[in-house]
Amino acid sequence: MEYFLGVDGGATSTALALCDREGRVLGIGHGGPSNHILAPGGEERARSAVLTALNGALAGAGLESPAFEAAHFGMTGISRDSEPARAFAAVVAPLLTARIVRIESDASVALAGALACRPGVVVIAGTGSVSLGRDPLGREARAGGWGYLFGDEGSGFALGLGGVRAALHAHDGTGPSTVLETEIPRRFGRSLGEIPLLFYEGRVQRPEIAALASAVTAAAAAADPVAVSLVNTGAEGLAAIAAAVVRRLTWPDGTAAVAPVGGVFRAGSVILAPLKAAIAARAPGAVLVPPRFEPAVGALLLAMQAAGVAHSPERLALLAATWELRSRT
Amino acid sequence: MEYFLGVDGGATSTALALCDREGRVLGIGHGGPSNHILAPGGEERARSAVLTALNGALAGAGLESPAFEAAHFGMTGISRDSEPARAFAAVVAPLLTARIVRIESDASVALAGALACRPGVVVIAGTGSVSLGRDPLGREARAGGWGYLFGDEGSGFALGLGGVRAALHAHDGTGPSTVLETEIPRRFGRSLGEIPLLFYEGRVQRPEIAALASAVTAAAAAADPVAVSLVNTGAEGLAAIAAAVVRRLTWPDGTAAVAPVGGVFRAGSVILAPLKAAIAARAPGAVLVPPRFEPAVGALLLAMQAAGVAHSPERLALLAATWELRSRT
Repeated sequence: MEYFLGVDGGATSTALALCDREGRVLGIGHGGPSNHILAPGGEERARSAVLTALNGALAGAGLESPAFEAAHFGMTGISRDSEPARAFAAVVAPLLTARIVRIESDASVALAGALACRPGVVVIAGTGSVSLGRDPLGREARAGGWGYLFGDEGSGFALGLGGVRAALHAHDGTGPSTVLETEIPRRFGRSLGEIPLLFYEGRVQRPEIAALASAVTAAAAAADPVAVSLVNTGAEGLAAIAAAVVRRLTWPDGTAAVAPVGGVFRAGSVILAPLKAAIAARAPGAVLVPPRFEPAVGALLLAMQAAGVAHSPERLALLAATWELRSRT
Repeated sequence: MEYFLGVDGGATSTALALCDREGRVLGIGHGGPSNHILAPGGEERARSAVLTALNGALAGAGLESPAFEAAHFGMTGISRDSEPARAFAAVVAPLLTARIVRIESDASVALAGALACRPGVVVIAGTGSVSLGRDPLGREARAGGWGYLFGDEGSGFALGLGGVRAALHAHDGTGPSTVLETEIPRRFGRSLGEIPLLFYEGRVQRPEIAALASAVTAAAAAADPVAVSLVNTGAEGLAAIAAAVVRRLTWPDGTAAVAPVGGVFRAGSVILAPLKAAIAARAPGAVLVPPRFEPAVGALLLAMQAAGVAHSPERLALLAATWELRSRT
């Protein structure tokens, strides 16, 4: 049997999937965050995240430790042939055997998954945000992704942070009142004024602020005007990066598929509707499409591609069906 | 001779002044940042900042190590009778002898200085931002000051960060073009795309981002529309915190003096004009007034007050004249 490995490594968690040559997903595993490989403790964190996810997937598949035909890693904060990519390669080398190992960004596997390796653009809003596209000529463009302080407009962190700021403004009397003033402390289990201090002291991390995004989108869905404004601003920021990518590439038939990927979009139409309107206004040829596969499946597609295995309709259908099945268990 | 000591301790630097009972400023000294006393290395940093500033002021005054009647410290991130205040008291105790030692926030000495201990409001825009006021009934109110991530609207850091973000947007094609795209890398001496990475890696600190505020205000003064918008947004944020403080207090004659203090206001009318308009719109009774004294002189006034020395017109005039003289040397 030939086995393929695909990994989506993010700032909040790491997802890993195994499949065979037919595209049958055999196991899925999850691990902790695997970002900041060059930071103190970063290599050990990445090792632990990959190993936990790999062991989970192997157990689900009933496999010991197979030799993989190809393994494709899409890691946040890592680009192809960079210093972090070399550090990550050294971390995973002792963990598994693979004939081909590819390491690139998490955005690239999200793009591959969302569009099944076809041309198009992905706009990602997880803990951070970024847009990446590839046109029919094979050229790539990217926008956003400048991190939690300098960018990440429309990301989970930006929405959660915006919610805390709006709540503090309501509390200070410097901004309009909003349900977020009570809703955010309730979700957090701490008083509002404690949240900044806990963050600055390192006792609250960015993913915990990003988790508050769902409080903001829920308040927007309930028509809280402050939350609606935050979500619309986020949608504008995401539309801006997606439209910039669309405009920088070439689309011979005049249309570019744009797929939204990431936890923020689980909120549904409250964010997707303003995103669709804002993209249409900025890049008339862009068409919002639902993502076809998860980023971890995108990594599997890229692993198969690296080994010369074609993405036949049968393989894609089997990947979709077995991923669905394995995700439920 | 009776001597008084006043200190303004900030996130970027520490200013210290000595005066005698008549209000004659005898020496001024400067040290490094003295914030985050409870963080790793914080006590040593505060000790070093205070000692450097104290030695500079004593040398200027030609004094050895006098016993002070009273010493008043206004320290960023420290409030009266708090855990950081106790830690700071333990740090300074071995450095000097004083009959009375008072430790409170940097905002309180800025307020005392700007209004010569009269009722009113101070709106501070240094590396961070905050507003503090005291009404004729002696009641205090505060707004803003939630730090670089959750607040600090209109601060040097917020303006500098906004400038970098706007430049990145121009670079990405996600926002309008602006002179900041070339001006910020020129001032920084690094390419634009490097700035976020250098910050996340800890190789660029917040004061260096805050220092870019002057690039933003200069671009606004030269009518760059993106920079004008950033400065106006900052002015709105500062007006919001000042107006919230004005509204929360009681002003029997219907007017409240609001004094702008901090490095951001060195830009002059480009920030002061929109601030004045925005405060007038939000708190009609507020009147923007120039600050009378520097925060370090405010600390001297509070030290004298603690020792029962009245702020006579003669003392205030001598403080103003001798501070001016000593600052020039």
